[in-house]
Amino acid sequence: MAGEMAEQPGVLRRLLTEGAPQISRTAERIAARRPRFVLLSARGTSDHAALYAKYLTEIRLGLPCGLTSMSTTTAYGAEPRLADVLLVTVSQSGGSPDLVASTEAARKAGAITLAVTNNADSPLAEVSEFHIDMLAGPEKALPATKTYTAELLALYLFVAGMRGEQGAEAEPLPDLAAQVLERDEDVRRLAGRYRFAERMVITSRGYGYPTAKEAALKLMETSYIPALAYSGADLLHGPLAMVDNISPVIAIVTEGRGGLALQPVLDRLRGRGADLVVVGPEAQVAAASAGFVLPTEGVPEALQPVLEILPLQKLAWEVTLARGQDPDVPRAIAKITETH
Amino acid sequence: MAGEMAEQPGVLRRLLTEGAPQISRTAERIAARRPRFVLLSARGTSDHAALYAKYLTEIRLGLPCGLTSMSTTTAYGAEPRLADVLLVTVSQSGGSPDLVASTEAARKAGAITLAVTNNADSPLAEVSEFHIDMLAGPEKALPATKTYTAELLALYLFVAGMRGEQGAEAEPLPDLAAQVLERDEDVRRLAGRYRFAERMVITSRGYGYPTAKEAALKLMETSYIPALAYSGADLLHGPLAMVDNISPVIAIVTEGRGGLALQPVLDRLRGRGADLVVVGPEAQVAAASAGFVLPTEGVPEALQPVLEILPLQKLAWEVTLARGQDPDVPRAIAKITETH
Repeated sequence: MAGEMAEQPGVLRRLLTEGAPQISRTAERIAARRPRFVLLSARGTSDHAALYAKYLTEIRLGLPCGLTSMSTTTAYGAEPRLADVLLVTVSQSGGSPDLVASTEAARKAGAITLAVTNNADSPLAEVSEFHIDMLAGPEKALPATKTYTAELLALYLFVAGMRGEQGAEAEPLPDLAAQVLERDEDVRRLAGRYRFAERMVITSRGYGYPTAKEAALKLMETSYIPALAYSGADLLHGPLAMVDNISPVIAIVTEGRGGLALQPVLDRLRGRGADLVVVGPEAQVAAASAGFVLPTEGVPEALQPVLEILPLQKLAWEVTLARGQDPDVPRAIAKITETH
Repeated sequence: MAGEMAEQPGVLRRLLTEGAPQISRTAERIAARRPRFVLLSARGTSDHAALYAKYLTEIRLGLPCGLTSMSTTTAYGAEPRLADVLLVTVSQSGGSPDLVASTEAARKAGAITLAVTNNADSPLAEVSEFHIDMLAGPEKALPATKTYTAELLALYLFVAGMRGEQGAEAEPLPDLAAQVLERDEDVRRLAGRYRFAERMVITSRGYGYPTAKEAALKLMETSYIPALAYSGADLLHGPLAMVDNISPVIAIVTEGRGGLALQPVLDRLRGRGADLVVVGPEAQVAAASAGFVLPTEGVPEALQPVLEILPLQKLAWEVTLARGQDPDVPRAIAKITETH
């Protein structure tokens, strides 16, 4: 896991150089088909990348968009009418049977199908009309790290391509990612805080929300700390009752509109005495109990998620070590999950 | 909260008699407009009713469907093209500013807009082209109970109406709900189990999945026990690592295809020594550590969620009392949540 986390700047760079032209051509061909609705299909870590793509699709493409509930096809045999629909299936392995089956069914039902995977020879890539290879190289650790950031960037470049753009604003990401990943001490200081935590809440809004969900999953599957992820708005609709001054909260605060929309939630959390750790711009970290300052200057809000998750992946790794467990061998899970 | 839970059979009956004709006419008018894509918008408890409607829409209407991310409109000013889109906004109060604003924006962008609320005079009902009144009477307790089951049934009847059906199969629900709500002792026995619980996992698949999410929210906002809800498939993609023999698990097992699809997950949980409590048919409860037997015979799987949540609402109430807290006054939350 540590080795694969460290590969991320290189993976992002490869995607921007070797991957981008293919992504751009694929986007151009799909744009020519003029999809009117977008569905996204994924599970686990890839589902968080899909959620990120949902924000991009609604905000940057102006297309209505939904995440699929795969069991409606695989368990209930639903046959939605999918003309004018683009289905994007995101999967590291491209091997999960339910993803393959539901993508195949969608293609038969008239959808334009695009697979985003890390394996061009996978069954999912094969049944999909279009395929984007995230070029992350083999991922062996059970907790997915480099394939997550590769999925985010691949999806960003795809949406840019759908807009007829090249996504040049993503070029600083590999260097910035390398800078963030070097700051071991900053992460270790935060990790000490959670060594004895029995639960935590992770929140964000807008583009940062998928980061909150992915950070929660990463913490759960490595350290086994139950981590509840909520959008800031949903947190106020009930779960806030559960947060008190012994519940640690991590907030991912984007530099941009999502971060602004999160401010009232942060105020409420501070008002309830929550231990608030912020991942975000310097001023936001200064107003919290502690945090990790991200280099967001000049990085569009829509690209900040690629950086936000990095200290949180490392946090999961450090907390797990601090608790005397092995982040590379989480109990009970497998790399290719055979759900149907 | 106890009083409103007890009102549910009456609320369901009123909806089936007084409410159904209006719902049927509304559905007929909307069906005539031939929507091709459905978006659902809601927060908190109503969001779980919206998720239930998503399953109904995909399975029974054959229409692709998505839950909205409201911040794309309210924070980012996204302007999706919504011709041929039906937007269903579900809200008890009809007063949350972000729901009103995003529904208004969607209507301007060409969507057919339908509000399902408990307040015909609410701002949300006003800005929507169509309105369904769930006729549940004033709900005063902070944890929503009767408006949840009313939302489920109203949405079921709406989807039936879109299919040109009357939904007569729902008629036994009020009596069955009354029978379920009488079984105080069965719930109290389960509540003892969770008095000292520090976390729990709630899982289901298909039609039962919204019940899992709503049960988790109910437990969190009353008892403050962190309750993590996962679809069975998602549980296998990572969070299973967190479940061990000290994590209580509640599984909602429908009698039908969702319940069947959940079986491999239940086997994995039993294999990991989880304390597995089942809400579902008798045979499923018998194979678990304990449970609550639901009268599912003759009730279509799509209607079972109306019954499933009842013992879980009462469980939240009983667990909260057992922990010496007051379920009627959860800290930190308000009845109309002012999210933007």
